Amino acid sequence: MCQRVMANPDDSGAPKEGGGGGDERFRVSCYWRRPFAEMRNDLNRRRPHYLSDWTDAYTRKVVSSALFMFFTSIAPGITFSALLGDQTRVDGRAQLGPVEVILSTAVTGSIFAIFGGQPLVIVGVTGPVTIFTIAVFNISDALGIDFLPFYCWVQIWAALMHMGLAASNACSLITLVTRYSCETFGMLIAVIYIYNGLRNLITYFVDLDPQPALLSLVVGLGTTWLALLLTSARSWSILNRTARTLLADYGATASIFFFCFVPYMGANYDLTPAAHGDNITASTIATLDVPDAVEPSADRGWLINPADCPAWAIVLAIVPALILTVLFFFDHNVSSLLAQAPEFGLKKGTAYHWDFFVIGVQMLVTGLLGIPPVNGLIPQAPLHTDSLCEKEWRTRPAGHSAHDKVEVITHCHEQRVSGLAQAVLIGLTLCALTVLGYIPIAALDGLFIYMGIASFGGNSFYQRLVLFITDPARRAARGLDFLDGVPSGVVRRYTALQLLILACIFGVTLVPYANCLFPVLIAVLVPLRIVTLPKLFGRENVDALDADGNAPDLARHSADADGAAEGTVGGAAAGTICAEDGEAGPGAATEVV
Amino acid sequence: MCQRVMANPDDSGAPKEGGGGGDERFRVSCYWRRPFAEMRNDLNRRRPHYLSDWTDAYTRKVVSSALFMFFTSIAPGITFSALLGDQTRVDGRAQLGPVEVILSTAVTGSIFAIFGGQPLVIVGVTGPVTIFTIAVFNISDALGIDFLPFYCWVQIWAALMHMGLAASNACSLITLVTRYSCETFGMLIAVIYIYNGLRNLITYFVDLDPQPALLSLVVGLGTTWLALLLTSARSWSILNRTARTLLADYGATASIFFFCFVPYMGANYDLTPAAHGDNITASTIATLDVPDAVEPSADRGWLINPADCPAWAIVLAIVPALILTVLFFFDHNVSSLLAQAPEFGLKKGTAYHWDFFVIGVQMLVTGLLGIPPVNGLIPQAPLHTDSLCEKEWRTRPAGHSAHDKVEVITHCHEQRVSGLAQAVLIGLTLCALTVLGYIPIAALDGLFIYMGIASFGGNSFYQRLVLFITDPARRAARGLDFLDGVPSGVVRRYTALQLLILACIFGVTLVPYANCLFPVLIAVLVPLRIVTLPKLFGRENVDALDADGNAPDLARHSADADGAAEGTVGGAAAGTICAEDGEAGPGAATEVV
Repeated sequence: MCQRVMANPDDSGAPKEGGGGGDERFRVSCYWRRPFAEMRNDLNRRRPHYLSDWTDAYTRKVVSSALFMFFTSIAPGITFSALLGDQTRVDGRAQLGPVEVILSTAVTGSIFAIFGGQPLVIVGVTGPVTIFTIAVFNISDALGIDFLPFYCWVQIWAALMHMGLAASNACSLITLVTRYSCETFGMLIAVIYIYNGLRNLITYFVDLDPQPALLSLVVGLGTTWLALLLTSARSWSILNRTARTLLADYGATASIFFFCFVPYMGANYDLTPAAHGDNITASTIATLDVPDAVEPSADRGWLINPADCPAWAIVLAIVPALILTVLFFFDHNVSSLLAQAPEFGLKKGTAYHWDFFVIGVQMLVTGLLGIPPVNGLIPQAPLHTDSLCEKEWRTRPAGHSAHDKVEVITHCHEQRVSGLAQAVLIGLTLCALTVLGYIPIAALDGLFIYMGIASFGGNSFYQRLVLFITDPARRAARGLDFLDGVPSGVVRRYTALQLLILACIFGVTLVPYANCLFPVLIAVLVPLRIVTLPKLFGRENVDALDADGNAPDLARHSADADGAAEGTVGGAAAGTICAEDGEAGPGAATEVV
Repeated sequence: MCQRVMANPDDSGAPKEGGGGGDERFRVSCYWRRPFAEMRNDLNRRRPHYLSDWTDAYTRKVVSSALFMFFTSIAPGITFSALLGDQTRVDGRAQLGPVEVILSTAVTGSIFAIFGGQPLVIVGVTGPVTIFTIAVFNISDALGIDFLPFYCWVQIWAALMHMGLAASNACSLITLVTRYSCETFGMLIAVIYIYNGLRNLITYFVDLDPQPALLSLVVGLGTTWLALLLTSARSWSILNRTARTLLADYGATASIFFFCFVPYMGANYDLTPAAHGDNITASTIATLDVPDAVEPSADRGWLINPADCPAWAIVLAIVPALILTVLFFFDHNVSSLLAQAPEFGLKKGTAYHWDFFVIGVQMLVTGLLGIPPVNGLIPQAPLHTDSLCEKEWRTRPAGHSAHDKVEVITHCHEQRVSGLAQAVLIGLTLCALTVLGYIPIAALDGLFIYMGIASFGGNSFYQRLVLFITDPARRAARGLDFLDGVPSGVVRRYTALQLLILACIFGVTLVPYANCLFPVLIAVLVPLRIVTLPKLFGRENVDALDADGNAPDLARHSADADGAAEGTVGGAAAGTICAEDGEAGPGAATEVV
């Protein structure tokens, strides 16, 4: 088995402003390291910054970021909890629901913000975990055993596997995940978000009466439009810089707030909020379905007794635990990679192994509480980092014919307060569940669409797709320097294959139950990238297309006005570029930081 | 009284591609010219081009332009006819309605396209004429005389006044109308269009049930959004130039078509088209209210017998005829000026006097038919010229720090076919009135909002307003060369005064009946510009701010991507720049053509 040595953290070439651990590069070499070695490295790297992780938080960005994260994190959580509540009923009573998902997000979010190595990673309940949980429920149902103790054991086993992987330095494997796999994954999540948002807005026309369906359409598309408009404020010429920054920072939050009120503006709307757990009727707009009180959905206490599970089932639980571990290994680490992409110019260092260990510890907690486990969220984690970055529009040096202004990241506020604050905010909603019951789901659908579009920014896969339909006469103006020297036929075929793969994986996500396996399909991308792609397109070409050297410059490109004309947004360049494949030149980082 | 001499048409300095009459400049001098002198000049100028006015029409632009004009011309016509039908009822039966307005637009549009001097001017029934007509109806009602014969006499007198003004070379007065008055007028019309469109979309929530109101909102704002998106296609990087041009040319038409179908997409809409003259109910979306058959709204034949009016009323009709003449003198000539703004680089020459004579002749026809009189439409006339222009995005010469690409007009298809075709199309709707009854009014509201926003393009008043809220640090990037040398405090006060005047005139338009006088208020702008403004701000400053020298360059600016971020559109730079104040340098025209 191959083991990795970490390169000297200080030879990354990125300029250091603070005395940070820097932008580590991994090199894969073939000898064993001692257990816990990388975890120790992680702790050594982050420990000097721990105090500053709290003292660096006195910035306005932390407030806007925490609010934005609160909405982007609670929105899918609530959506998935509705699915969970629907699909895990025993004698008509849900085993899991909104309270469990909110509790899980709040507790683990707080733990991760305080004890995690890289506090910029936002954790929460994901779609795959939801599907996985439903599959576990169906298995326990088929086997005639209680779901929650079985689910508890699945998490206990998976927690041990997580800790084992972290201790055995296995997370270094993530160095093999290049920009190619990350961007395909990022695009997949973006497509899923946009697809779900739009599908919901259309489905209302089937499920609801025309009036609430139309109102939902207005609220949903309005939320997306306003969020896109406001978050592009940095590129405006009007107002002053402070006002533009405020608008861009609070744009998505303001949009959600505004459109949550829209359905309540007209006095003559036939609108009865579906609070207090009542199901909505077809003649009312769909709002969040929340319970009356903070108590487990099932008829149980908060702690699960693992002894309630028969011995054979405890052993059997190892199988789903294995799947959950594979899922989290990719999902969490890719989310962590994306949140620490070189474009952000982070300085305090990474902690992949320690973080994965913390994820394991959290899984013990969630398992014993009988609530869903969490991992790093895409696109929320990269959006979180992005929202903490100070950005500027700078005139490009002469010689760049394309855009005379580019957005550059000047500094990122690396701290723990925004992550903790969003988790606490989510926890506080448990004290005001009734208020949540007034939120129109359509506004959250609009937020999903916004998040999907926002995460296109800086994704070179997306940029190459746009290149397909770009006028050849205007291609140079797009400034895609990474295409220099790669024949356009190769770019076209390489991108077409990537699109085909994306379509296949997206197809899999539409198949019930099979869809929880899609992170494994993403994993298949890694050997494909290393073995197959160079054979098909030539090693130099693939290396050039998959390089992260010019990533930051590209990442900032899409944010200018040109992008707006094609339906993309500037501002949020998240979910896109992940690097650390050992071939990145430091020059680009220099250009950005 | 002052009389004007026309400068040699060939000394305008604009480069000639064809052997055209060119861009005449007027000089005001103080001796009498012989009656009909200017009309003869007009005919001499246009006669050499008459054949080419038909042969130059073999271009794709003519098709897209005619379709676009059909919608932009019939939409307000139908809207005003609804108002007319409502306000001119005798024993519950309307004296005027959609049939009269459509007939008037089709007949006079055809006459003007064939016999008019400047066939790019689109004529039709305007808002002021509608209000004027209702006032005439109320007077005849109060006096106890038949409305239609009285209305006929008003038009006969006004027609004679029109012909007299044209014969006495009075239209040369229009040289005193500078960019200042034109742009204030253009902004006023744009604001009125946007105000009415939005007001209608909001009023549906009062008049209709929530469902049709919401559907109207989606259809209305959707139409505006899609039209703005598509007509900005020229600035895109995607697709090839032909496709972008097609999208930009047919964008508004396609948007209207699409959103007219939207309400009919869902099978479960409670939608009963208000065809066959039935009034819509509150539970259905508002569609055009059209009659069953092509016959006069009133119980009468098509020809009015002028003898049905008592002699004293015939004499009294001179008073409203005078008001109508003042109204048309400004409204028609400003519309004609805007349609021939220097930015368009027209080559075939102007015909203000001949055109005003034709307007008089048409008024005899409409008077005897008992249908409303027509004049040049704002913003339709300038939008018509704009839609016939071939445009290109060109890289600006070095030294312009601001925008590296600007849209320039390379050629304008000056011909009579598009004007005639749109009039014939409008006439053809009389054969398919029932189809018109399916058009949702909300789509027309959206078209109004689009027309208003589109006519901001290139309006330097609008650009100065945007400058108010522009970050000083980014002001240079807006490239408003005409502000060079003018102290920014002066620009601010000059623009604030213009805004105040705009607000006052807009306020007047909201007052019932007083509003038909608003063209007279616009006329007050002329002495204000000539006498008062130089006293307040200094002659040099006002001349610089009111110059049209750099107009074309400015006009094209707003069309780039920068503008899009502020809610303006490129593409349509209409309703904005009118010149011919004798001080224009030809340099700008050179830069554009």
